[in-house]
Amino acid sequence: MDAEFHLDVALIHHPVVNRNGEIIGSAVTNLDLHDIARAGKTYGVSTYWVVTPYPLQQELAAGIVGHWTEGYGGRVNSDRAAALAIISICASLEEVVDEMTRRYGRSPKIVATSAGGERCGITYAELRRELVDERIPVLLLFGTAWGLAPAVMELADAVLPPIQGPSAFNHLSVRSAASIILDRLLGCREEADQL
Amino acid sequence: MDAEFHLDVALIHHPVVNRNGEIIGSAVTNLDLHDIARAGKTYGVSTYWVVTPYPLQQELAAGIVGHWTEGYGGRVNSDRAAALAIISICASLEEVVDEMTRRYGRSPKIVATSAGGERCGITYAELRRELVDERIPVLLLFGTAWGLAPAVMELADAVLPPIQGPSAFNHLSVRSAASIILDRLLGCREEADQL
Repeated sequence: MDAEFHLDVALIHHPVVNRNGEIIGSAVTNLDLHDIARAGKTYGVSTYWVVTPYPLQQELAAGIVGHWTEGYGGRVNSDRAAALAIISICASLEEVVDEMTRRYGRSPKIVATSAGGERCGITYAELRRELVDERIPVLLLFGTAWGLAPAVMELADAVLPPIQGPSAFNHLSVRSAASIILDRLLGCREEADQL
Repeated sequence: MDAEFHLDVALIHHPVVNRNGEIIGSAVTNLDLHDIARAGKTYGVSTYWVVTPYPLQQELAAGIVGHWTEGYGGRVNSDRAAALAIISICASLEEVVDEMTRRYGRSPKIVATSAGGERCGITYAELRRELVDERIPVLLLFGTAWGLAPAVMELADAVLPPIQGPSAFNHLSVRSAASIILDRLLGCREEADQL
């Protein structure tokens, strides 16, 4: 069933912004790898790209992933191995797009996520339709720290609407946001509502 | 708007089960506090109960929460302070139910969550209706480790259907599961689909 659509997600560690809107690079976070890989595996994501230009951070991420896919962690927890096996580590968004273009025979639709409510231009239902019915390969971008830098937002073909609950508070972790967005796009909600 | 419904969540650290189905107590995890508090605040949760019978674990959790609500963390990040302020630490599920009963003038409907697909008996849409339209106070239970112990499941009035994506893999982190379930219950999805 995973082959019915082609969805990749990328977690960007540079360039992102800090609380003051300045361009920074953020550190890789262990649970960003685990939680988003587990959600990605649940919702049929093909590859979860961990994007950082820093070689030592790439090594750190590769060490964590290796522990769970080839090392001791994976031997005692095969579910975790299956989840973290969807992770690929790379240096830039350009690399991700090039590799997806090679794999899928066309450049992916790049869809950014943001808590800010910039120009949106696509709904969850529309993106689900493009992904599942039209089989358009899609790359979903998530930012660490205080979010994707403007230069990354400009590369996106569309931006999903921010996640809103009944309160005005919108400071979800990127782990929560990624999980919710994948569920809005690909969750089997109908079944759950028709017991 | 938060006062329109009364939803609390409880993260249970004991009794839960390990991979072999044995009853254990789990350790408090820093990002369980942060991520579920941030999601809870987003979706209008009144209180996020961190339930552990171990005094040292209660101290640890209180130390983390205090750093972000009264200490240095909260002074530099008021959003995080607002999120972690919904956390209350307590020793048992019975304490949570007693306190909710006192606050809301009636015992809450206790709704468990599970990846296992036991008896369900309530849909997300039904629970949303009871919560928002009927104003029934609801306590959502989440398990750490490999999930809630049978003794806790038996206390529940209902169990929400497990979260499913298009794959057979269902090993979400409790942080992801809690975020997705809150979004299914209370997310402003219609707005996001009608730009």
